[in-house]
Amino acid sequence: MNGLMMDTPLTIQMILERARTFFPKKEIVTKLANGVHRYTYKDFYHRVAKLITVLDQLGVKNSDRVATFAWNNYRHLELYFAIPCSGAVLHTLNIRLAPDQLAYIINHAEDQVIFFDAMFAPLMKQLKPHLKSVKQFVVMDGGAIEDDDFKALSYEELIEAAAEGSFPELKEDMAAGLCYTSGTTGNPKGVLYSHRSLFLHSMAMTMKDNTGLCEEDRILPIVPMFHANAWGMPYTSAMIGATLVLPNQFMQPIDILKLLIEEKVTVTAGVPTIWIGVIQLLEKEQFDLSNLRVVLIGGSAVPASIIDYFDRKYSIAVLQAWGMTETSPLGSIGRLKSYMQSLSKQEQLAIKTKQGIAVPCIEIRAIGDNGQVIEWDGKSLGELQVRGPWVASGYFNTDERAEAFRDGWFSTGDIVTIDAEGYISIADRAKDLIKSGGEWISSVDLELALLGHPKIREASVIAVAHEKWVERPLACIVLKDQFKGQVSSEEIIDFLRDRFASWWLPDAVVFIDEIPKTSVGKFDKKQLRNQYKEFKLPEK
Amino acid sequence: MNGLMMDTPLTIQMILERARTFFPKKEIVTKLANGVHRYTYKDFYHRVAKLITVLDQLGVKNSDRVATFAWNNYRHLELYFAIPCSGAVLHTLNIRLAPDQLAYIINHAEDQVIFFDAMFAPLMKQLKPHLKSVKQFVVMDGGAIEDDDFKALSYEELIEAAAEGSFPELKEDMAAGLCYTSGTTGNPKGVLYSHRSLFLHSMAMTMKDNTGLCEEDRILPIVPMFHANAWGMPYTSAMIGATLVLPNQFMQPIDILKLLIEEKVTVTAGVPTIWIGVIQLLEKEQFDLSNLRVVLIGGSAVPASIIDYFDRKYSIAVLQAWGMTETSPLGSIGRLKSYMQSLSKQEQLAIKTKQGIAVPCIEIRAIGDNGQVIEWDGKSLGELQVRGPWVASGYFNTDERAEAFRDGWFSTGDIVTIDAEGYISIADRAKDLIKSGGEWISSVDLELALLGHPKIREASVIAVAHEKWVERPLACIVLKDQFKGQVSSEEIIDFLRDRFASWWLPDAVVFIDEIPKTSVGKFDKKQLRNQYKEFKLPEK
Repeated sequence: MNGLMMDTPLTIQMILERARTFFPKKEIVTKLANGVHRYTYKDFYHRVAKLITVLDQLGVKNSDRVATFAWNNYRHLELYFAIPCSGAVLHTLNIRLAPDQLAYIINHAEDQVIFFDAMFAPLMKQLKPHLKSVKQFVVMDGGAIEDDDFKALSYEELIEAAAEGSFPELKEDMAAGLCYTSGTTGNPKGVLYSHRSLFLHSMAMTMKDNTGLCEEDRILPIVPMFHANAWGMPYTSAMIGATLVLPNQFMQPIDILKLLIEEKVTVTAGVPTIWIGVIQLLEKEQFDLSNLRVVLIGGSAVPASIIDYFDRKYSIAVLQAWGMTETSPLGSIGRLKSYMQSLSKQEQLAIKTKQGIAVPCIEIRAIGDNGQVIEWDGKSLGELQVRGPWVASGYFNTDERAEAFRDGWFSTGDIVTIDAEGYISIADRAKDLIKSGGEWISSVDLELALLGHPKIREASVIAVAHEKWVERPLACIVLKDQFKGQVSSEEIIDFLRDRFASWWLPDAVVFIDEIPKTSVGKFDKKQLRNQYKEFKLPEK
Repeated sequence: MNGLMMDTPLTIQMILERARTFFPKKEIVTKLANGVHRYTYKDFYHRVAKLITVLDQLGVKNSDRVATFAWNNYRHLELYFAIPCSGAVLHTLNIRLAPDQLAYIINHAEDQVIFFDAMFAPLMKQLKPHLKSVKQFVVMDGGAIEDDDFKALSYEELIEAAAEGSFPELKEDMAAGLCYTSGTTGNPKGVLYSHRSLFLHSMAMTMKDNTGLCEEDRILPIVPMFHANAWGMPYTSAMIGATLVLPNQFMQPIDILKLLIEEKVTVTAGVPTIWIGVIQLLEKEQFDLSNLRVVLIGGSAVPASIIDYFDRKYSIAVLQAWGMTETSPLGSIGRLKSYMQSLSKQEQLAIKTKQGIAVPCIEIRAIGDNGQVIEWDGKSLGELQVRGPWVASGYFNTDERAEAFRDGWFSTGDIVTIDAEGYISIADRAKDLIKSGGEWISSVDLELALLGHPKIREASVIAVAHEKWVERPLACIVLKDQFKGQVSSEEIIDFLRDRFASWWLPDAVVFIDEIPKTSVGKFDKKQLRNQYKEFKLPEK
């Protein structure tokens, strides 16, 4: 027997309607080259309603994929709502990918239209001959492009000419968003979000024990809107009527700090590498961060030094979250439980550097080498598996990696321990673990320790082939500018000596100028491993 | 095209599993005649798992209704989870109803088993001959009952003998809970909650802009578990691992205050009449309420005097919520928007006395006399309609009042205004509005003003027939003990004179000892109107 409750679909339309109804005066702010663009959710709503007509005029049908190629800005936000609310699928393209990867992804997704920031026109022109499905290009800022070999309609002209459209009735299980991840091996793979998954994820983001986003927040997502939906913050902000502050392409530490201050931002979010740069600047100059209450960090394990820095210097809470494109992304969050408040600062910091407990709706387990579920003892290693209503059940239009979705669980590829309190601690990506003489060494643990060294700016530890031990760790170090050429390998290794078993210590240290970054700003170990494939470790 | 997300059902099982997994050490506390009963979510979980076996042994099948007749205590909480997690339907009976109403409801619901607190054994015995479907009685505290004409199994003996059962697979749309409301005319009507509706409602309760319940909270629901699921707090608390403090039958102001203090309660919830009694006691004696951060009040409009009292004297936020059994119950909540923080205290108080804006997932509108949707101008009156995933789509097993569920909206029977900011203000229950000479007078507005009078304890304003004006208001007043016999009708009317148009002023005042209460502790206007049906108003 079913309950007698309304069969109300949980859709992006409901979020949009809520912003219009209850928060018409609240603002969306976008950084521009000169000053900012500022308008209200009411203005926003009316433009989204016009876009419904525009999409129809462009020939976009139900479930068609419509791509965006843009920074975090208000027009991108309009498309975030208009495309799924029209019944089509928002496909956010990663602007940092190589052209051949982009062509593969666009063709695989069968995108019908691409909306792009004007600065990317040359790239679009270059891509066009390789695209099989795209029927229209629309340039989001600036006038139409009418070159012989490349034409693009003007977004503003289309909106200008359009009447507000009416929203079709949607079901909550319908596809709403598509995001490709190149995190796994082989071709990039698409994660196809539903209205339901995006809606539930937005609700979860507002739970007080999760990120606790609320109406009075002024939220700056530094994490790109082309990366796991900017961790859901655009949808969440509209649901609760929070002020949204969008950085556009202005992503340098100084730009970020200025925007934080000028727009009185209360919550911001990005990957650890962003904060390493920001902290460097904070150490040199004075900035007033008194409005900021939460820095949400995810995407890679967060060094204790970052958490400690913000806490000690600014009383700002760093919240560490774990997730993946396949998990929408919020999977777990690193908050202390109430009875942990009595622990020492040091013990608390140790817990905060873990990736936290699963958020409501998400279930976790980890599978050891023997195929069995591991004990939650904080020691046993296993691959993290998750399930829940905003976890992918498969990749879009491919059977590749189908084994990652067996038995109703998604295998994340993250090797973790889980402690008795349920806190996940990521030891490594499965492919980054270093196997030395049959024992695992966690590159993540070594890196997190190294990043706490006062002279080190960036650090990455990779496996290098070794005749006797199969693999041994190599530490790749970027020193802070003022310490360049003044630090020895011994000093680095000595720093680690007290913290780890001797057989964990890297066999060598290389000092480099920069650690290569992935398209979403994380340290790119794949590239680093390639670079040092032939590296000859010292004899021991 | 559907999204490719896991089809994870949102069920009470998931909430239970979460409490067991991440919060096994957190406590559930129940007030007893001597001291308290205290155990953990872990202990709780194992008893719930045993109850799965017990229910099976009692012959309870999928979708069977299983009734509880109990105060807010830990055994009742166990049944809150065990019954729906077994696939059956938890039917919470209102212990304050008259025997004939109870018999009607139990027979209509076709309850198979009734679990009851031992103190209600005489009533159960009295009811038994009138019950058609009940096959088993189980007494929750104390030993089995083996009378000739009434037998009841012992809850503790059943649990003692049972092994832990396994949980069946459930779908989220399945019925999980049943609660009858006698708020409408005619027979009591059943609202049939689904797993999905209860789950989503629990998530909503934890959103920071709603009640913002969180793990560190110690939550005391004074609102009974037989009334709209104690506003969802039992399920919400388990989802977030909050400490739950249950008052059992100890509901006098002194009991409540003692429990608040001894258990360091941070959030409590109940109808306004409870707080009127508590404030009376607070005015006489000193109590340390420093742990309490939120008093959630709903069920009737909240007098400004209560909000102001807690704010001024204790810096405790009174959160006013609106809801009904048919809305699970959370429909709207009275928080200020961030830009209202700059208003004067007085202006803020005026907003806080409204019933707030709809919570996420819930949509609202109001329909005027002419059948049209009213303007949101804070003046136009209309009947509030709501829709959303935890709003009833009909009543259980009856077509009575089907007109309340037309066009996908539920007509609440509350006459409201909605202002430009989206804040609902309840003018009256439709049936309580006073129609004088073709114009509406809001009894609620008059009552809220009267409750602000320093000498008045309780106040209710009802319509009395009038030859010329059709209806005119009569004020029924209960004075505080120390002012009994010392206040004139003129003083009361004069108090209202500055606040309302002269034609709104009651034509007469009667001083009485107590205002009759409904089974859920609200002022019972139906009874009052009956009592004064023949009241002769003074000639004017």
